[in-house]
Amino acid sequence: MGFVSVLNFTQQLIQKRLQPGEIAIDATVGTGADLVFLARLAKTRGRVYGFDVQQAALDQARERLDREREADDGPDRRSRKAGAKLASVELLLRSHAEMAEALPPDCRGRVGAVMFNLGYLPGAEDSRVMTTPASTLPALEAALSLLRPKGILTAVLYPAHDGGGVEAAAVERWASELPGAQARVISYRQPQRPAAPYLIAVEKV
Amino acid sequence: MGFVSVLNFTQQLIQKRLQPGEIAIDATVGTGADLVFLARLAKTRGRVYGFDVQQAALDQARERLDREREADDGPDRRSRKAGAKLASVELLLRSHAEMAEALPPDCRGRVGAVMFNLGYLPGAEDSRVMTTPASTLPALEAALSLLRPKGILTAVLYPAHDGGGVEAAAVERWASELPGAQARVISYRQPQRPAAPYLIAVEKV
Repeated sequence: MGFVSVLNFTQQLIQKRLQPGEIAIDATVGTGADLVFLARLAKTRGRVYGFDVQQAALDQARERLDREREADDGPDRRSRKAGAKLASVELLLRSHAEMAEALPPDCRGRVGAVMFNLGYLPGAEDSRVMTTPASTLPALEAALSLLRPKGILTAVLYPAHDGGGVEAAAVERWASELPGAQARVISYRQPQRPAAPYLIAVEKV
Repeated sequence: MGFVSVLNFTQQLIQKRLQPGEIAIDATVGTGADLVFLARLAKTRGRVYGFDVQQAALDQARERLDREREADDGPDRRSRKAGAKLASVELLLRSHAEMAEALPPDCRGRVGAVMFNLGYLPGAEDSRVMTTPASTLPALEAALSLLRPKGILTAVLYPAHDGGGVEAAAVERWASELPGAQARVISYRQPQRPAAPYLIAVEKV
């Protein structure tokens, strides 16, 4: 049957925890795949905040989101996903390191899930724009402060690209040093493929 | 909700793959917990082979198995687990490194699952008796040769005890070097607890 991929495993962890009506954060919007995934889980009464430092990313994500909404609302009943209406989504052209200040105060301690998918924007004109530990580590701290108890933070790490190995190691060290009274951490990876993306997941206690 | 423990995650992987009527192997019987787990999954028409180099381990496992069978067959209907009759079990006082020779030839390429739970027998008089790479690595090779396509081999590694770290590293290296055409490998661990048990799982292609 095959082991589930790192991305599927990440989604399964989120799916089991994020409830309809909750707040979720996509810390690295990119082309918007995680954003749509979170908006489907949080459903109509939920809220999703998306962060990216590139306008091109937010534009792509907005288009993707609009297509999803059209499919939900369209006249073709077969394309409607019953009860799966999307949460409201707010996109912010800001560094994820600022997420604690950027969100309304009522989010603190109430966020169900935060997803990080590190590295650079696929297909971007300037692939030198990428996440680095200088902003990623404060962003992880901010994300953890926003989570509710039992809320989850996932980080998919890309050790293969330039600087990605350093960033992955920094994230893994940060997570491994979290006190057990504050959070639990697991990793899921493919030992045959040390350069492949892998997951660090953090559940707030 | 909490992440599933390494032992639960291991059992989930096996449970999804091992089918009623199949053959399974407990490569490190110990007190028999995995043995009973496998016998329940393989059910009445299945077969489970258990290996251990210590008679004390096999004795404990046999007792545990007998208790389980009594509970299944007993007059108290509440204690019966419907349809969960145990597979036939054969216990072998031999090194798991010899499993390919020790099993009937009809097992080759037909085994659904092999479980390794490395280290020493809990509560044993002589805790110097423990698995080592010298026998563990040939045992893993033998196990892989016995598995059917999509069959699974799990190894729970104990880096904390004397020699356990060396053994864990050896197993991890063995698994990480398996060609992708032969097998897929994942690891599941707790980065906050580098000395805690962790899982290497191998699915035959």
